[in-house]
Amino acid sequence: MLRSHTCGELRLENVGQEVTLTGWVQKSRDKGGMLWVDLRDRYGITQLSLEEGVSDPQALTLARTLGREFVIKATGTVIERVSKNDKIATGDIEIKVTTLEILNPAKLPPFLIEDETDGGDDLRMKYRYLDLRRSPVRKSLELRHRMAQQTRSYLDGQGFIEVETPVLIKSTPEGARDFVVPSRMNPGEFYALPQSPQTFKQLLMVSGFDKYFQIVKCFRDEDLRADRQPEFTQIDCELSFVTQEDILNTFEGLVKHLFRTVKGIELADFPRMTYADAMRLYGSDKPDTRFGMQFVELNEVVKNKGFKVFDDAELVVGINASGSAHFTRKQLDELTDFVKRPQVGATGLVYARVQEDGSVKSSVDKFYSPEDLQQLAQAFNAQPSDLLLVLAGGADRTRKALNELRLEMGTRLGMRDKDTFSTLWVLDFPLLEWDEESNRYHAMHHPFTSPKPEDMDLIDTNPGAVRANAYDMVINGVEVGGGSIRIHDRAVQSRMFDLLGFTTEEAQAQFGFLLDAFEYGAPPHGGIAFGFDRLCSLFGGADSIRDFIAFPKNNSGRDVMIDAPSSIAQAQLDELQIDVRLKK
Amino acid sequence: MLRSHTCGELRLENVGQEVTLTGWVQKSRDKGGMLWVDLRDRYGITQLSLEEGVSDPQALTLARTLGREFVIKATGTVIERVSKNDKIATGDIEIKVTTLEILNPAKLPPFLIEDETDGGDDLRMKYRYLDLRRSPVRKSLELRHRMAQQTRSYLDGQGFIEVETPVLIKSTPEGARDFVVPSRMNPGEFYALPQSPQTFKQLLMVSGFDKYFQIVKCFRDEDLRADRQPEFTQIDCELSFVTQEDILNTFEGLVKHLFRTVKGIELADFPRMTYADAMRLYGSDKPDTRFGMQFVELNEVVKNKGFKVFDDAELVVGINASGSAHFTRKQLDELTDFVKRPQVGATGLVYARVQEDGSVKSSVDKFYSPEDLQQLAQAFNAQPSDLLLVLAGGADRTRKALNELRLEMGTRLGMRDKDTFSTLWVLDFPLLEWDEESNRYHAMHHPFTSPKPEDMDLIDTNPGAVRANAYDMVINGVEVGGGSIRIHDRAVQSRMFDLLGFTTEEAQAQFGFLLDAFEYGAPPHGGIAFGFDRLCSLFGGADSIRDFIAFPKNNSGRDVMIDAPSSIAQAQLDELQIDVRLKK
Repeated sequence: MLRSHTCGELRLENVGQEVTLTGWVQKSRDKGGMLWVDLRDRYGITQLSLEEGVSDPQALTLARTLGREFVIKATGTVIERVSKNDKIATGDIEIKVTTLEILNPAKLPPFLIEDETDGGDDLRMKYRYLDLRRSPVRKSLELRHRMAQQTRSYLDGQGFIEVETPVLIKSTPEGARDFVVPSRMNPGEFYALPQSPQTFKQLLMVSGFDKYFQIVKCFRDEDLRADRQPEFTQIDCELSFVTQEDILNTFEGLVKHLFRTVKGIELADFPRMTYADAMRLYGSDKPDTRFGMQFVELNEVVKNKGFKVFDDAELVVGINASGSAHFTRKQLDELTDFVKRPQVGATGLVYARVQEDGSVKSSVDKFYSPEDLQQLAQAFNAQPSDLLLVLAGGADRTRKALNELRLEMGTRLGMRDKDTFSTLWVLDFPLLEWDEESNRYHAMHHPFTSPKPEDMDLIDTNPGAVRANAYDMVINGVEVGGGSIRIHDRAVQSRMFDLLGFTTEEAQAQFGFLLDAFEYGAPPHGGIAFGFDRLCSLFGGADSIRDFIAFPKNNSGRDVMIDAPSSIAQAQLDELQIDVRLKK
Repeated sequence: MLRSHTCGELRLENVGQEVTLTGWVQKSRDKGGMLWVDLRDRYGITQLSLEEGVSDPQALTLARTLGREFVIKATGTVIERVSKNDKIATGDIEIKVTTLEILNPAKLPPFLIEDETDGGDDLRMKYRYLDLRRSPVRKSLELRHRMAQQTRSYLDGQGFIEVETPVLIKSTPEGARDFVVPSRMNPGEFYALPQSPQTFKQLLMVSGFDKYFQIVKCFRDEDLRADRQPEFTQIDCELSFVTQEDILNTFEGLVKHLFRTVKGIELADFPRMTYADAMRLYGSDKPDTRFGMQFVELNEVVKNKGFKVFDDAELVVGINASGSAHFTRKQLDELTDFVKRPQVGATGLVYARVQEDGSVKSSVDKFYSPEDLQQLAQAFNAQPSDLLLVLAGGADRTRKALNELRLEMGTRLGMRDKDTFSTLWVLDFPLLEWDEESNRYHAMHHPFTSPKPEDMDLIDTNPGAVRANAYDMVINGVEVGGGSIRIHDRAVQSRMFDLLGFTTEEAQAQFGFLLDAFEYGAPPHGGIAFGFDRLCSLFGGADSIRDFIAFPKNNSGRDVMIDAPSSIAQAQLDELQIDVRLKK
């Protein structure tokens, strides 16, 4: 190699050695006849030094021309540093340079290549290859690499085989929008990019692969909300001859393994909660359990006392923000504004403070007697200095709003520390959800999810009440993975397509190969998929997945660095036998 | 799990244990009151037994209804087998069944699920999920999994980081045809699927990632010749601050590691040969070196003796098929027909046998004296019983034809054993090749390949003579990988685009981001990519890559199992603002 060592490895024990380093100029200082250059590569930073009247004049002259980000090669002797730098691993030594070579000069970068940069999002996206030089971004991708390696190591150890499934597949109307690819060899026909390898992994079970996994790119042509990407990566898994319990244990094991090997954290066994309980206690199927503040339902306590808002409400429900009675009027007004925001959706906020003497002071004192308010406080098991926050209205909407308020309070009270990890399995999801718009049931997970055997009777009488053998893994309020036991019986699968509004012909046209496969000996099977980008950002303690993706797209689905998508040549369109027809 | 053991793990030491197995019925025999069922899963086959008057009558009755490929669960006791079966690992034992459950019945498969099947290609492609049950196909994919795991393990150990590069990128006119993806959010614009992550891996070097790899899907919309797939997988690698020597050593190390860990074979150091020598000695840049039979050039020996075919030829060149003088007239006629096939392209074949007494008998005896023929034999260093095969004509065409003949002879003489592995590095490829059709130079490797520094002067005077720092790894005549040291200087890269016929504007529009990146401190770098499907099939001793791909497409680019590509809904076309316009 052009170097003898990296910029991260020299120590005191190397003093006296002649070494050659290569890398980028982080910065240089020229002071009192001494010139210092910080040389950076992926592995660290090492200080180079040259001295007027001592170093080779040619090297010194050249060194004085170095700008930030120049790529250089320097040879010299490792010496002990006079003033140590304990912030970097090589801080005990420096290189007394004898010869210097510029391998490539550099224009001044459009933003600082430092941990804290002055570049805005757009600029850093355009020059992503420079942003990737910054150590926090590089470390995020190194973390991702380690997570992928450890995932493969664990699953391989458990007998899983990684199988690559195709990227050019068939478009299906179910679920999100597909990206499609016109076929030149089959004019007028299109491939689709997979939203997940769902049907292929089930076919692999029919094939007897027994334990399959894949770390795989998936694609969804959805309007991009913040922090969604049109292409994303899943850890996709499927097993045969298993019960739900086997799957929970295997993948709880995977995530424990990742925390142990990547972060040095031993996780306790994951608590479990039904979907029904999660909705009742947290108003969310992915509760952040780093803090308590569980919902307390208050219909029994507060109704029929003359406060019309509560009396008319389907549900009155609140949380106890313990120790927050000191919140000022201004802070409480902010919270009221918060819950009234359209995306939260409450109509107002009722609060009650438990005073030092145990008495309760509330925003609805005129409707409730001190005794009523004591009952309210008791319902929350409230203590002096607690702050009770109460919402009322339609049950679903109010739970959803209180979930938002609970998370907001958790954030304000500093109870959502990124270095604390709280895990949860959410179980027994409903099989179906009713969609008002299309006036039919949709599959809550996907159309291949198995109803619970004990709920099978309800399929004809009350489909909305049927629970599925479906489960989500939740960490810190983030759904990191989810899956289900699948249907492996053709008749049940046909019934399911029927419930979802497919005609027999449509089901056969779209999923005939899977229905056929079920007739040739399909084993009982189930699986799970993890959002790998999200899991990495959780491990990295970041809110955004962007820095865990080397070349992300912006919110319009554009890669602004390479300027894609872009128009293509007419000859390409002609070969594909398609026309662009822009709407007026 | 539904089972206590797999069908591959029970041995004599398990005798007496109560076990539960699950799997597929391979076959059953009902004879003299005994019923035997071979139960199969990914891990092996175990024999179940039931006995009239001894086993539970219900289990026996059910067992008699079992057809091939039924999925069952059987519980019973492990007993020692009376007649051992040493062909299977569990052949010492069988399971005396107490209870039996049918988990899923199966229709009769359309072909035999056996190592040797009666199903034709088309049928097996349509029912690929059944074909994958056959043990040779399953083993091919297990091999692929181990190769991927070992590749990652080796490269991780060498300090490489796996980085995922995007699948939705920008279309470029250079090279093969792109698959394109219309963008709904950017109407009239298209993404392209990557033919390789070439520019992204170079940008990662500019970013300082130092050592990158990825096992990654790539896409080419080419007319599919036999054994080409529209989507294929590469082991893609790039390193900074390296010389060609570093790259050769690192990846020779990778392939040695794979042979050692996956096949238990220790490979010797790889020989090296220049492109010029490979063409001269084998007429191919990927010679099969499992056997010798190097070309012998004969212009000095055979010209000007009155044989017009040789006298007029640019090149007369032959091979010595040692020990093949016994080839019959019929065999030699077959060889003559072989070399005259259009895809081989010779006009005729001259042969000469060295007889037991050392005399030479040839098909051109009337033009050459016995002494001339002795000279010819000496040029080949021929011995009694050798067969000399000689072609003549234009140099390139004749070398190409003789390469085909050499391979044919190697096959006929049994010198191309699939379990013998002969490795080779081919070095010093030409930078450019002249394309008659477009009347301009094309990049032989790709436009980012660096000219050899010592040939840089020739770029302006004789571009066709410039050699590149480019290399291919060849095993058994298969190019398994190839790469180059890249250009890292903007001026050289611009000159290269210029030579390839790009205007400055075109180069900037297509590769501006890369040219820009080169101005911000690009390190010297280089890399390599391996065709992973091909490498796996080589390891598996197969000619075709199909069985090393779980769900391959046919020669029309169709997945006949899922029936893709297919037409899509008008609503999808409308959203994408494109029309299908089929040619009349």
